[in-house]
Amino acid sequence: MTFSRRIVSEALGTAMLLAVVVGSGIMAERLAGGNVAIALLANTIATGAGLVALILTFGTISGAHFNPVVTLSEAWQRNVAAREAVPYIVAQVAGAFAGVAAAHAMFGEPAFFASMHARGGAAQWWSEFIATFGLVGVIIGCSRSRPSITPFAVAAYITSAYWFTASTSFANPAVTLARAATDTFAGIRPADAPAFILAQLFGGTAATLLFTWLYPAPPANATVGGTVAPSAFTNQSASD
Amino acid sequence: MTFSRRIVSEALGTAMLLAVVVGSGIMAERLAGGNVAIALLANTIATGAGLVALILTFGTISGAHFNPVVTLSEAWQRNVAAREAVPYIVAQVAGAFAGVAAAHAMFGEPAFFASMHARGGAAQWWSEFIATFGLVGVIIGCSRSRPSITPFAVAAYITSAYWFTASTSFANPAVTLARAATDTFAGIRPADAPAFILAQLFGGTAATLLFTWLYPAPPANATVGGTVAPSAFTNQSASD
Amino acid sequence: MTFSRRIVSEALGTAMLLAVVVGSGIMAERLAGGNVAIALLANTIATGAGLVALILTFGTISGAHFNPVVTLSEAWQRNVAAREAVPYIVAQVAGAFAGVAAAHAMFGEPAFFASMHARGGAAQWWSEFIATFGLVGVIIGCSRSRPSITPFAVAAYITSAYWFTASTSFANPAVTLARAATDTFAGIRPADAPAFILAQLFGGTAATLLFTWLYPAPPANATVGGTVAPSAFTNQSASD
Amino acid sequence: MTFSRRIVSEALGTAMLLAVVVGSGIMAERLAGGNVAIALLANTIATGAGLVALILTFGTISGAHFNPVVTLSEAWQRNVAAREAVPYIVAQVAGAFAGVAAAHAMFGEPAFFASMHARGGAAQWWSEFIATFGLVGVIIGCSRSRPSITPFAVAAYITSAYWFTASTSFANPAVTLARAATDTFAGIRPADAPAFILAQLFGGTAATLLFTWLYPAPPANATVGGTVAPSAFTNQSASD
Repeated sequence: MTFSRRIVSEALGTAMLLAVVVGSGIMAERLAGGNVAIALLANTIATGAGLVALILTFGTISGAHFNPVVTLSEAWQRNVAAREAVPYIVAQVAGAFAGVAAAHAMFGEPAFFASMHARGGAAQWWSEFIATFGLVGVIIGCSRSRPSITPFAVAAYITSAYWFTASTSFANPAVTLARAATDTFAGIRPADAPAFILAQLFGGTAATLLFTWLYPAPPANATVGGTVAPSAFTNQSASD
Repeated sequence: MTFSRRIVSEALGTAMLLAVVVGSGIMAERLAGGNVAIALLANTIATGAGLVALILTFGTISGAHFNPVVTLSEAWQRNVAAREAVPYIVAQVAGAFAGVAAAHAMFGEPAFFASMHARGGAAQWWSEFIATFGLVGVIIGCSRSRPSITPFAVAAYITSAYWFTASTSFANPAVTLARAATDTFAGIRPADAPAFILAQLFGGTAATLLFTWLYPAPPANATVGGTVAPSAFTNQSASD
Repeated sequence: MTFSRRIVSEALGTAMLLAVVVGSGIMAERLAGGNVAIALLANTIATGAGLVALILTFGTISGAHFNPVVTLSEAWQRNVAAREAVPYIVAQVAGAFAGVAAAHAMFGEPAFFASMHARGGAAQWWSEFIATFGLVGVIIGCSRSRPSITPFAVAAYITSAYWFTASTSFANPAVTLARAATDTFAGIRPADAPAFILAQLFGGTAATLLFTWLYPAPPANATVGGTVAPSAFTNQSASD
Repeated sequence: MTFSRRIVSEALGTAMLLAVVVGSGIMAERLAGGNVAIALLANTIATGAGLVALILTFGTISGAHFNPVVTLSEAWQRNVAAREAVPYIVAQVAGAFAGVAAAHAMFGEPAFFASMHARGGAAQWWSEFIATFGLVGVIIGCSRSRPSITPFAVAAYITSAYWFTASTSFANPAVTLARAATDTFAGIRPADAPAFILAQLFGGTAATLLFTWLYPAPPANATVGGTVAPSAFTNQSASD
């Protein structure tokens, strides 16, 4: 896969992910009539299902990271070249904001408007540490043992983490930044974003240290969406 | 697979899809007691689960398009012969109306009655553009990289799109026409159908252009339900 | 697999299926506080998830029919020997009643008590025809094209059919008889059972005729749970 | 896989499982506003999705038992060495308590506080017998026939068992002990735990006896998460 295709894949995939997260949050809140449990349940199902579709669609192009913490962890493991980490992250952040704007246009909201949803304090930061630790752990564990199943494991993990963490599991700096630009169900106050991102970076670091020890022998080039190496392309379709 | 089998497959599969969409919408609205979020949640789960079963069942016969936009995109990519596109689409539309009538008979409603559910305006059209763009993108991306997983990716995408688009994601001209003939939960006012269909055609066109660039090397004859070529039939069962 | 193992598999699997259907119906009704949509949603998720687990568990032993209509259709296609159809069906019916009693014991109800839930009329019978037609169609279509995926397709279909049919999709004579012995959420009045069973037999017949025409070339011995032939046993685990 | 990696895998995996079960129970109860059906539905979806992610992540290291009954059953079948059963179980119990504390920290609760949720009586014990019987049966049946699919079957079974058993299916002594230390949605009164554990042991014993008869020929070293043997590691990724 050429570099330009991979960058477009990360940007477009992250845009669609944010459209899913923010759009389904708006729809859920509008229909649920104040019942937050039902709204979060709908938001969860839409996110989990959308995520598996997007990782399956973009995984063989760019690895379907959609997440700077995942890109940094993969670069650390040398599954992506270090020089590609920055353009990956730029594409993810730009895509994330585009996805928020696309969702807002679908629901008749302004392109961007800052969230007033306060999310802070030690319990929330601990939640984001755990959420990201688990996400990176699932990615490393699955991509080093049965990579073709990783898209399902990642989507299932996020489905679960929306409920078992107190923060509803952002677990992604690009997502966190973009969700600061929406004052809807999925939003986070811009002032609260930096601490979330810091907790996510710590969680990703801890998981990368622990899970690369747990799984010492990586197959070449395995990552979130299955495989990125062109040579693995045919194998992927054969072994799915 | 003979041509007659493929046409019956498209007609019957699309009929069952509409029975699922319309039937579960009626059931959900009757049981939910006015809570639209719960009704849409039930409608979503029934549609996503039904869709994966139907694509798995009919995919190896006809590709399980069930959707004129998908057929046009596949014809553009030369995965189906251009001369077969029209009979495919006729079968899909006829099947869609038959499915609506079958659902109405299950719930004691008249065979057809025009919807009075207004769905219009730029936000709705943009939603249909996005919904169809994503659907065709998922189909091209998966069928060109890991075709045996495409049925799951398509069903997961639609599950998500019911919630993240403001229009609940029709994303299908045959479905749109047939849903104009039911004044129940899933209906759309006949006058609103043409603009929806136009937006769907634009979305499908944009996705076909972009995703055939992203995935330049298609395997022979891959499509929605896995593969259509008779020679791929045995490979399919071996690699599932 | 020996004959005795296969008969135990059908009896035990059907018993567990009925424990799932009836038990989750009782739990759902007790917790849902009169909201039938939420009760049916819980009952649906429990049934779909339970069904995939049970078919995966028992499929390679006996085919995991759990359903006289499926056994008759498989015997018609010569996937099971005609002389084995009667013991299969006896095991299914006996297992189904045992499963209802097991569920009742879990919830402090008497072993059996006749349902007073009226389910009759042309719309309901048409629903059962459609429900069983679709079920047998999914089984034939998947088991003749990608048998290792059949357990997922069957469970997904039933998940959908709980909502898109007006009868909540019994689609199984053994299940219908046993559900006449429970006056809980999942029950059916004994007097209404024969017409349901008749509609199911018609639906299964129509599907067997149509789908064996659609899929003319069956692989040897494929059936609901993947494969039953001992020689296919190793292939199954290799190709999953 | 080295012994230390396997022990860390069991401890960490069980910790994350308890964080999922207890954390999502707290979140669900807080948001559901007294509607227990909706709370249990959210708790169910989070648990089922989390379980599949965790088994896929840790399965190829330690087998992903997370459950003393499963470890004892595997040791009985000689899939794990008898001398490893005790450290496995110690790791599971220690991990389970750590997971409860981690969840409590995410939601601002004390590390441990005894549950006051009474769960007793013959119907509850029978429920735990059935729940564990089914769990061990699903594990043996799938791991002896199509091991790569076992993680999905186990998660689907637990999703179902949360609803079809009157006890919401603990089915795990380590989970039962740790859930006695949380006075939240998922809790169980410490005095009620021993009878639950006894019922679980009986259920696991019955299932091991019956299902090893049903499936007489085990492949080497198959277990919950696919396979544990290092030599099977590569095969696993190839056959997924």
